[in-house]
Amino acid sequence: MEQERFKIGVWLIGAAGRVGSAVALGIAALGEELIKPVGMVTALPDFEPLRLSRAGDLVVGGHEIRGETLAEAVLNAHQAAGIFEKGLIEQCAASLGGMQANIRPGVLTNVPDVLRNGADRLKGVDAPRAGDAVDELAQDMAAFRAAQKLDHVVVVNLASCESTPGGLADLSDAKQLEQALVARSTDSFPGSCLYALAAIKAGCSYINFTPSVGIELPAIRQRADTAGICYAGRDGKTGETLIKSVLGPMFAMRNLKVLSWVGHNILGNRDGAVLDDPAIKAGKIESKRSGLAEILGQDVDSPVSIEYVQSLDDWKVAWDFVHFEGFLGTKMNMQFTWQGADSILAAPLVIDLIRLTAHEWRRGGRGCMHHLASFFKSPMDVPERSHFEQWCRLMNYVRDSQADGATG
Amino acid sequence: MEQERFKIGVWLIGAAGRVGSAVALGIAALGEELIKPVGMVTALPDFEPLRLSRAGDLVVGGHEIRGETLAEAVLNAHQAAGIFEKGLIEQCAASLGGMQANIRPGVLTNVPDVLRNGADRLKGVDAPRAGDAVDELAQDMAAFRAAQKLDHVVVVNLASCESTPGGLADLSDAKQLEQALVARSTDSFPGSCLYALAAIKAGCSYINFTPSVGIELPAIRQRADTAGICYAGRDGKTGETLIKSVLGPMFAMRNLKVLSWVGHNILGNRDGAVLDDPAIKAGKIESKRSGLAEILGQDVDSPVSIEYVQSLDDWKVAWDFVHFEGFLGTKMNMQFTWQGADSILAAPLVIDLIRLTAHEWRRGGRGCMHHLASFFKSPMDVPERSHFEQWCRLMNYVRDSQADGATG
Amino acid sequence: MEQERFKIGVWLIGAAGRVGSAVALGIAALGEELIKPVGMVTALPDFEPLRLSRAGDLVVGGHEIRGETLAEAVLNAHQAAGIFEKGLIEQCAASLGGMQANIRPGVLTNVPDVLRNGADRLKGVDAPRAGDAVDELAQDMAAFRAAQKLDHVVVVNLASCESTPGGLADLSDAKQLEQALVARSTDSFPGSCLYALAAIKAGCSYINFTPSVGIELPAIRQRADTAGICYAGRDGKTGETLIKSVLGPMFAMRNLKVLSWVGHNILGNRDGAVLDDPAIKAGKIESKRSGLAEILGQDVDSPVSIEYVQSLDDWKVAWDFVHFEGFLGTKMNMQFTWQGADSILAAPLVIDLIRLTAHEWRRGGRGCMHHLASFFKSPMDVPERSHFEQWCRLMNYVRDSQADGATG
Amino acid sequence: MEQERFKIGVWLIGAAGRVGSAVALGIAALGEELIKPVGMVTALPDFEPLRLSRAGDLVVGGHEIRGETLAEAVLNAHQAAGIFEKGLIEQCAASLGGMQANIRPGVLTNVPDVLRNGADRLKGVDAPRAGDAVDELAQDMAAFRAAQKLDHVVVVNLASCESTPGGLADLSDAKQLEQALVARSTDSFPGSCLYALAAIKAGCSYINFTPSVGIELPAIRQRADTAGICYAGRDGKTGETLIKSVLGPMFAMRNLKVLSWVGHNILGNRDGAVLDDPAIKAGKIESKRSGLAEILGQDVDSPVSIEYVQSLDDWKVAWDFVHFEGFLGTKMNMQFTWQGADSILAAPLVIDLIRLTAHEWRRGGRGCMHHLASFFKSPMDVPERSHFEQWCRLMNYVRDSQADGATG
Repeated sequence: MEQERFKIGVWLIGAAGRVGSAVALGIAALGEELIKPVGMVTALPDFEPLRLSRAGDLVVGGHEIRGETLAEAVLNAHQAAGIFEKGLIEQCAASLGGMQANIRPGVLTNVPDVLRNGADRLKGVDAPRAGDAVDELAQDMAAFRAAQKLDHVVVVNLASCESTPGGLADLSDAKQLEQALVARSTDSFPGSCLYALAAIKAGCSYINFTPSVGIELPAIRQRADTAGICYAGRDGKTGETLIKSVLGPMFAMRNLKVLSWVGHNILGNRDGAVLDDPAIKAGKIESKRSGLAEILGQDVDSPVSIEYVQSLDDWKVAWDFVHFEGFLGTKMNMQFTWQGADSILAAPLVIDLIRLTAHEWRRGGRGCMHHLASFFKSPMDVPERSHFEQWCRLMNYVRDSQADGATG
Repeated sequence: MEQERFKIGVWLIGAAGRVGSAVALGIAALGEELIKPVGMVTALPDFEPLRLSRAGDLVVGGHEIRGETLAEAVLNAHQAAGIFEKGLIEQCAASLGGMQANIRPGVLTNVPDVLRNGADRLKGVDAPRAGDAVDELAQDMAAFRAAQKLDHVVVVNLASCESTPGGLADLSDAKQLEQALVARSTDSFPGSCLYALAAIKAGCSYINFTPSVGIELPAIRQRADTAGICYAGRDGKTGETLIKSVLGPMFAMRNLKVLSWVGHNILGNRDGAVLDDPAIKAGKIESKRSGLAEILGQDVDSPVSIEYVQSLDDWKVAWDFVHFEGFLGTKMNMQFTWQGADSILAAPLVIDLIRLTAHEWRRGGRGCMHHLASFFKSPMDVPERSHFEQWCRLMNYVRDSQADGATG
Repeated sequence: MEQERFKIGVWLIGAAGRVGSAVALGIAALGEELIKPVGMVTALPDFEPLRLSRAGDLVVGGHEIRGETLAEAVLNAHQAAGIFEKGLIEQCAASLGGMQANIRPGVLTNVPDVLRNGADRLKGVDAPRAGDAVDELAQDMAAFRAAQKLDHVVVVNLASCESTPGGLADLSDAKQLEQALVARSTDSFPGSCLYALAAIKAGCSYINFTPSVGIELPAIRQRADTAGICYAGRDGKTGETLIKSVLGPMFAMRNLKVLSWVGHNILGNRDGAVLDDPAIKAGKIESKRSGLAEILGQDVDSPVSIEYVQSLDDWKVAWDFVHFEGFLGTKMNMQFTWQGADSILAAPLVIDLIRLTAHEWRRGGRGCMHHLASFFKSPMDVPERSHFEQWCRLMNYVRDSQADGATG
Repeated sequence: MEQERFKIGVWLIGAAGRVGSAVALGIAALGEELIKPVGMVTALPDFEPLRLSRAGDLVVGGHEIRGETLAEAVLNAHQAAGIFEKGLIEQCAASLGGMQANIRPGVLTNVPDVLRNGADRLKGVDAPRAGDAVDELAQDMAAFRAAQKLDHVVVVNLASCESTPGGLADLSDAKQLEQALVARSTDSFPGSCLYALAAIKAGCSYINFTPSVGIELPAIRQRADTAGICYAGRDGKTGETLIKSVLGPMFAMRNLKVLSWVGHNILGNRDGAVLDDPAIKAGKIESKRSGLAEILGQDVDSPVSIEYVQSLDDWKVAWDFVHFEGFLGTKMNMQFTWQGADSILAAPLVIDLIRLTAHEWRRGGRGCMHHLASFFKSPMDVPERSHFEQWCRLMNYVRDSQADGATG
């Protein structure tokens, strides 16, 4: 007997950005069986028993502040960075066109000028009451669910990094937040918070794939818990940090004393341009840096730097140098260079997160999904940073989930 | 109440080689508390409950075919490779002198000329009966145990790589082996087999830290099992292969398709010189190569090359290039360079293996010690090559061992 | 007054190989002004006064042993290695079609099986007299010149590496060569020699861009000198060796003592597959290795290795590790990784060589063109290997050439 | 007939710093023929005809603000960074002791706190008239010359990087400078200027091996020209920039279009600590960056970053990534890692500069020594940055010098 399938909405914040458009192209190409699910964790045999949503079960929509369409975005990425095949883009044109119809103008607050350029599809920016902007965003999500007859919608934040404005620390509980949404203007909240609030309001699950604060503002998180939505974050672990989370434990398991671990990252897409803003760069670096001390069981000198290099476009090159001491006082070193295309690495993980979140929703879960820690640089609530320990967590979840009999 | 301590003999085959002499210096320096146990796995807090042997409990001796003393060997290593502190060597002079008195001439068969040069402390080389050479070697071990009033002796093979002569495959059981030891000359056996047989005969535990066949010749292993000794091997996992065993699983867990994984190793110590012999190099490469397919769950193009570069002396530089495919057909790559001092990396693991073997002997164990798989490139019997899975095996052992109440 | 232009034939041996087809595409694209001459040395302002041939003056033809067309070859390269733009290939389709009409079946001797596979356009392979094969090849070249009304033809050897068969050393002069061409079969000569002889016979200039012996067999070179043709070789200096030829002099000028210089090359095109044949690999390695001692003024341990890694296709990755001693006995090191697309690097140099050879022919030159040394790994007759010294040679030529008033 | 020898004083500003003490050890070791002059440019055969000063002709003294002696400094460097041999230090103890007697307290102005720590041998810091500090410093130099019966003294600035205080730009000529030295306090001048003025006053030659302004303040340079002293600078070209100055021209000569050139430097000595001061880092980066545009003939995105990593001590690791475009629009890349010991690389060049400066003085030269451009990151007056072009300049000088018959 065929299992009941659920129709799942995928609502991307920053839908036509590099990662967002790659997610869209990926879902289209998977749906038409034009590609194999290389790079998708949930396509591993371990996950088969969960019978996760198939690409054909997913309907894509989202918010976007720029006029560039999904089709244009992937073509631009192809031309600038040499990623994707031109033929593949052409084969997916119709699917991308269908998704495009589901994209709505977004909000934009507290961002550097480089992001503001070309952002011509904005809403609610100068609303005197932030709550009004949240309402508008939530209506877009709810309308999408209704129009597409979806069983559930998963909202994924893929918008560019932002800085966190001051004056939010005092919002310690749901009540104060409520008042602030009425009393303060849109501009006094980071965009990621407005979107998170909208997702909660619309009863959607929420994933934060960026280092922005989003749902992690305590008052917002409180509201999410009250509403009983599923959520996870933050900052997708795609490259350098992923490697750190397997190499770091190696040094620890061998009792080699890491003296310093230097990371230098160069990248050229809009994410990189945004990181030229020092306040935003600081947040990103903190997210990349965190974890090494936990892994190594000692504090370690670990400067991380990020440089915007336009010619690289979507390519992200990371050079790491590990200086360590071995037996009898001898100092040795290891270095690695990682050359990855950012959206190619991120997109399949986003699809993984959507599938696993839909499954958790189906299973009746709520709150923070700790089993998704291995997908994030700064996993919420979960202290362990060793990728293998995080992986064990996920495998345990799969096992428990099967025992439950939950699928879908 | 103070726990009973055991006095453990450490019998090193190739005692004054680069690794052997570093083990000796390390035990001396630890015994006098001149260094911290950096690089020793068993110095991690996880192992505290086992109350493993302390450096002061260990007495070093061994076989050596060259006239160089332990003190000379470590000084030469210091001068040629810049490893160890000169002051440390001086402080350990007396200890090294004491160990030196326990070193006996060894056997040498089936090796390239580069090894034969300077090998002036040989025994039994042209004995018409291989069994006589085994007897002589076993007597050295037994005499050491008696003279030093040791509770137990652990034999560790640290001799240079050797090729395996033909004509051994037919020795399928203990009986045929018995006959061959009488009928064949010393030269018809690889040295590593003669030493393994001697260890068995003398009732010692046996560790094979090299890629030589040693105890793994089926007929010899049968004899070891009958005799009930503890053993493990083979080929210490010190550098490039260690990294492969944590990075490989990362690619697998992320479902990234490794297209090729190239490894190029350059090194300059006697081990490297020996590897200029093509037959020996082939064996070493096989040992380094194996495992990647198991880890990645697919066969992969993984050429490994080794080059002898005299100026590097004890330094081993490995460059690995991983070419992989990600989502939507995009090819990416990662490369690393590892610059490690071979004996510095190997010596603490040898001490770990001695301590863990002594513990297993104390505990009444016998046969192949599968829980030691994480220390070897080609662990006996154990299929998993992911370092983390091997580590879990070791941690399970520690847990079980505690439950037993075994210590020492 | 407009200068008289010459119509120059470009006769490529191995026309539809990776480099040959990239040369064809490049000439087509330059002729239609679709690309800028990036990577072409002769497009630098220094060469302007020479008024070298323009792409529109060049007519492409050649010998090819495989059925793949130029258009198919560049499309395959695009798909396998991600090089060229698909749009560019489409725009050049007509030009490539025109060139295709000028391509004739070639000869193939003394090659490994990997080259023989798919070689279905062969001529004269089992001719009992090698001279007959030479005549046939020369007729192709002469017919091309006549049919296209060309002022001159430059033959460029771009065929895969080959081994040099024994029994050629005794051909010490033109007379013996003459006899051998009658008495010996085609198979007793390497293909590169047959082509070189054909070029001489047809009165064409000759460039050897490969490590094959070609015109450098003494008896053949004698014949070339007698015939008064212009020639140069051998083995295009495109990547790792180019870097060595600028980094090596740096160490020399700073009196830093290079202890060892290790080079490891991985590549995946047919050239790489051919190099799996040990005899051929040895020749290539010798060509790559030579020069370092000359540059450093001392013999140096410089192992070079080459590995065929199919997944890389046209990409050639080279890792070099330089171990050197500085002041006060301190050892330091430098390493580099070069990631280049072989045909992309080679093709513009081939066009440079054609333009400069046509110019030298126009100027009335004959014999070995020493000023082209900077283009080759093993420049004929020229001892200096420092790229800058070779460059000075070229610049001097440009200056002298201008003084002569020669252009074209 | 034996040539007349001159006795040359070597006056090091920052004598007991890492570079200064290595220069002292080097001169001592060369004088006693304990080492070979590896790393010294002037030890190449090209320079033999100049009969430059021998180590035995050099007498070392200098200014130092810290109490650490030369002998302590080299021992500390050995222990922290593993450079030099302990035995060599011991053999040179007497020579170093002799030099130590010639060391005088220095001045310190406009520096970050990290430099001020431990600076306990200061003079004239709060002198109300900067000119008085200059006088004191000049007297030290003159007294050294008299006491040691020296023919000439060469002053070399090896002090840590400093920032340039504002308010100096208005000192446009010698007269205004004169007034400022009377009217302004010591603190209103950078230390490097005070030392340069002292060298001029004392009639010494002057070399600026650091990025500090020193003699390049226009009014100071005017004074140096009037006084007719020989000088050169600035910022010794020891590592990453040296490589850029040979690799950059390679890309230019091959007409490859460099899209971006990223340099990341990590280092751990006091120089590195000083660079944690953003103002000082900016100056250093500017010095490292400059030149690439000149070499490549185009402006290029070339971010340079420097990070202080204490564990590296004297070791300086530079990673450079070069992204470039080749023929037919294909993008490729090259990267290198340089692992050098800073003082080991710098010290022999300092000795070279002393020998060549003494020679120029002997020859009657005056003013800026343009032929020394190849030794500096930012050579005074000389536009060319290609190391080979700079080298040609030096070789021309050697040739001209020989023609003159000048030696010494």
